[in-house]
Amino acid sequence: MNVELEEATPSHTYVIGVDFGTLSGRAVVVRVADGTELAAAEHPYRYAVLDRALPDGTPLPPDWALQVPADYIEVLRSAVPEALARAGIRPDQVVGIGTDFTACTMLPVLADGTPLCELPEYVSRPHAYVKLWRHHSAQAQADRITDLAGARKEPWLARYGGKISSEWEFAKALQLLEEDPELYELTDRWIEAADWIVWRLGGAYVRNACTAGYKGQYQDGGYPSRDYLAALNPGFADFVADKLDHPIGQLGELAGRLTAEAAAWTGLPEGIAVCVGNVDAHVTAPAATAVEPGRMVAIMGTSTCHVMSSDRWAEVPGMCGVVDGGILPGLWGYEAGQSGVGDIFGWFVRNGFPASYAADAAALGRDAHEHLTALAAEQRVGEHGLIALDWQSGNRSVLVDHDLSGVVVGLTLSSRPEDVYRALLEATAFGTRTIIEAFEASGVPVRELIVAGGLMKNALLMQIYADVTRLPLGVIESAQGPALGAAMHAAVAAGAYPDIRAAAQAMGKASPAVYRPDPERAAAYDRLYAEYRLLHDYFGRGTNEVMHRLRRLRAQASV
Amino acid sequence: MNVELEEATPSHTYVIGVDFGTLSGRAVVVRVADGTELAAAEHPYRYAVLDRALPDGTPLPPDWALQVPADYIEVLRSAVPEALARAGIRPDQVVGIGTDFTACTMLPVLADGTPLCELPEYVSRPHAYVKLWRHHSAQAQADRITDLAGARKEPWLARYGGKISSEWEFAKALQLLEEDPELYELTDRWIEAADWIVWRLGGAYVRNACTAGYKGQYQDGGYPSRDYLAALNPGFADFVADKLDHPIGQLGELAGRLTAEAAAWTGLPEGIAVCVGNVDAHVTAPAATAVEPGRMVAIMGTSTCHVMSSDRWAEVPGMCGVVDGGILPGLWGYEAGQSGVGDIFGWFVRNGFPASYAADAAALGRDAHEHLTALAAEQRVGEHGLIALDWQSGNRSVLVDHDLSGVVVGLTLSSRPEDVYRALLEATAFGTRTIIEAFEASGVPVRELIVAGGLMKNALLMQIYADVTRLPLGVIESAQGPALGAAMHAAVAAGAYPDIRAAAQAMGKASPAVYRPDPERAAAYDRLYAEYRLLHDYFGRGTNEVMHRLRRLRAQASV
Repeated sequence: MNVELEEATPSHTYVIGVDFGTLSGRAVVVRVADGTELAAAEHPYRYAVLDRALPDGTPLPPDWALQVPADYIEVLRSAVPEALARAGIRPDQVVGIGTDFTACTMLPVLADGTPLCELPEYVSRPHAYVKLWRHHSAQAQADRITDLAGARKEPWLARYGGKISSEWEFAKALQLLEEDPELYELTDRWIEAADWIVWRLGGAYVRNACTAGYKGQYQDGGYPSRDYLAALNPGFADFVADKLDHPIGQLGELAGRLTAEAAAWTGLPEGIAVCVGNVDAHVTAPAATAVEPGRMVAIMGTSTCHVMSSDRWAEVPGMCGVVDGGILPGLWGYEAGQSGVGDIFGWFVRNGFPASYAADAAALGRDAHEHLTALAAEQRVGEHGLIALDWQSGNRSVLVDHDLSGVVVGLTLSSRPEDVYRALLEATAFGTRTIIEAFEASGVPVRELIVAGGLMKNALLMQIYADVTRLPLGVIESAQGPALGAAMHAAVAAGAYPDIRAAAQAMGKASPAVYRPDPERAAAYDRLYAEYRLLHDYFGRGTNEVMHRLRRLRAQASV
Repeated sequence: MNVELEEATPSHTYVIGVDFGTLSGRAVVVRVADGTELAAAEHPYRYAVLDRALPDGTPLPPDWALQVPADYIEVLRSAVPEALARAGIRPDQVVGIGTDFTACTMLPVLADGTPLCELPEYVSRPHAYVKLWRHHSAQAQADRITDLAGARKEPWLARYGGKISSEWEFAKALQLLEEDPELYELTDRWIEAADWIVWRLGGAYVRNACTAGYKGQYQDGGYPSRDYLAALNPGFADFVADKLDHPIGQLGELAGRLTAEAAAWTGLPEGIAVCVGNVDAHVTAPAATAVEPGRMVAIMGTSTCHVMSSDRWAEVPGMCGVVDGGILPGLWGYEAGQSGVGDIFGWFVRNGFPASYAADAAALGRDAHEHLTALAAEQRVGEHGLIALDWQSGNRSVLVDHDLSGVVVGLTLSSRPEDVYRALLEATAFGTRTIIEAFEASGVPVRELIVAGGLMKNALLMQIYADVTRLPLGVIESAQGPALGAAMHAAVAAGAYPDIRAAAQAMGKASPAVYRPDPERAAAYDRLYAEYRLLHDYFGRGTNEVMHRLRRLRAQASV
């Protein structure tokens, strides 16, 4: 077969990467030899995010966020052929397909992979649908999971910074059990969407090492014990054995061969390599060439996800997780995060951008962010006299406390929007430095930052991060980092490269050290960072619990 | 003479009050019998505030703020006749004229009262002009005055909350001496504009008890000692004896009789009563009927000035001053203040009022403050989840620290402009409560609040103050509180009333307890106030000196 021949010769052969995001899927056609992206296509999900009602009108409670799995299949049916057509290559030049997904995004399926929501008798049952990563209504379950693990001193708890998220596999499953036991009973597999899509492509269910570790509490070859689960809820005792446990596939491994059905959807040749599933943030690391220890990738968008591989193992306080092979097989994969970054800048522009500024920006042909950035860029470090805490959306790392909130200190009658805006940019950089210092203090060195995601186009922000962290800062040279990463994994699964390191070397695209710290600015930022840390610990580590009290007052007042 | 006859019969006789503000003077014609305001007229100062250059173009350094004394005379020549004409009364029905002035506003004059800036040879010398209250370039002198007084344990220091302001008589005089010794030498009298205008009206220099006490450090019948002054600067040793000391007139006393010259300016009869000078804030107290101990008047505009008389003497920490007869003869007059109030709301509207809000406000026919207030009024106490410190313009009372700055805590991605706006309204109310509690803790009871000034028209703000302070809150029923107060003092000086208490009873205009505390809201505010005080002490009393460090960083970065 042609496909078999191509596997050994990466020139003139191609791979497809498909990135399943929150609102759409994007397919990209990538040359195996050098990572050149020939073409891309995007397909928005018909049902986007169901957060108010099911498609049939059944209303949803607050904090729910569901999706429809057929939307994912539609991406395969439309975006993949469209990208292929735009690329102008023959389908038989494609040797593999790789995917990445939002996580933790979970669905209940039958033994053959059929989602429960596709059974006509359950279309009106919310729990039959995909629970998107930002489905947040399992907080009560998550709190019990964390509290019980703490009380029992479960060894895996420290691997997740001491807190299990409501977004993850166990909290969402426990919510299913407790709120719709009939559907829980009917569920043969509680599966990541990342693995479900691979199953549909390659015909086999393979549980990927990344989500199993970061979202499924799979550590050292095992899950939370039956005892522990029974203590959570007697009906949950056999959850792992019955519905979750499954052979693990390492990232970049072959999960299966493209089925006839999937070949028909995509227009790709039946039998090409289908790679083990992956997560959007983590799959970006090799796309950004971050395959050596110490190269931290920050995927900076509405929030920031930090991923880094290391040969050293440590329980870094406040990280999201550490997983063996969680990013690259053979290395410890670390994940940390800031729950609000671009979201904070967007919030500020919506609420703190006066009409006079809007008029100036329009006259200059700038959008609000460009205008505020240009004004802020004229300032010297410290000139605005402000210090902010970047917790408008809570704090993921290192405090793991979503009930924290934002602070601005130093306001005067001469403080202007660009001053506060710059202080917010800086606050997120201080947040990243706090994370980096937590790694360093735990003996896990961070040598370099590589930025991916939409915020990398803000040069002022990038320079601030370099100055604040005193690290060289590179940027990924792809607008489709996750899809490129998925394609690289497909190349490995197809045998074109022996491993992800080799694929990253040939196909990865990052410009290193585009921004370098300026010693004078870095010294000035050291002083501001000291103020940040002082306020960080005062408000974040229990000296003054005002933020928690304000939140309770708010909840009581809103009743 | 007709005038003499009228003094005993207040019906159909009138008094004139003239309020000399920062940018203009306002004259009001008031019926002696009942305080009815027949008419008012305003005259803006031609030179307004000189803060960049003298009239001849001589440039001024930063933080200077000068005025031209001829502008004050112009108010007498235009606003007084205009008000008279509008009132439709005969000049011979007017029995007296009273004035109030900004303070501490100082000028150097010759022995006959001629301002040095009116001598042709000194028109280009900045120090020859009036130094307006907000002339702030004598901070270095003020710091030395405070520090030396502290080191020498001068007994008068505690009467001013432990700090002497750069705005006051001694700091401004010491600056004159040190920066222009020739003009200092030439100065026969270092005089308050409040007293200078009375001198010009009545032909005699009388130093009013109010400014002498609050701004001139006159306490217990004496001034800071020659020893102390010599230690400040040997050339300053005889400052009090040579240039400042002068017989004191009590408020409401007769200072003189209208001169022929002033009668020609004003169109008023020569020989009518001219009252001792007064200060805008203090003169408002009797206009608002606050003549008994415990009735605190808050004059709320860009900043707030709190004035209250009491029969009890105490050194209340952080007040601006306590002066025997400083508001009403025979009672201790207390002054405290918040350096930013309306200024903070104005700053927020300039910087935090988005275009979409501006459009909504325009559609509803509201200005920005009305729109934000209407939106904020829909909330329950605590619903916004925020707490703010109202120090955007520093803190006058009780911390006496102008290098403090504003804080907002509790921001989330759902925080809106009306949320922050309401938090700022509340923060100023917490600031007032802090001042009231300082009085109470020192044994000086506060029973009631009466509000004057532009902010009294914001009903939400007024209700918040009542709820936060748990005090009944009245409002003055005059748009010209200071001018009305000045007119009342004129009536006393003219002999129409035996004292200011009697005049206040007949002519004062306040509606008591227009706003009453709501117990439920007051209880909720107690919880927010506790948070305010915690942050107040943390940032304001030295636990975290971040605000001072940020200000130093800002100064260094701006070089």
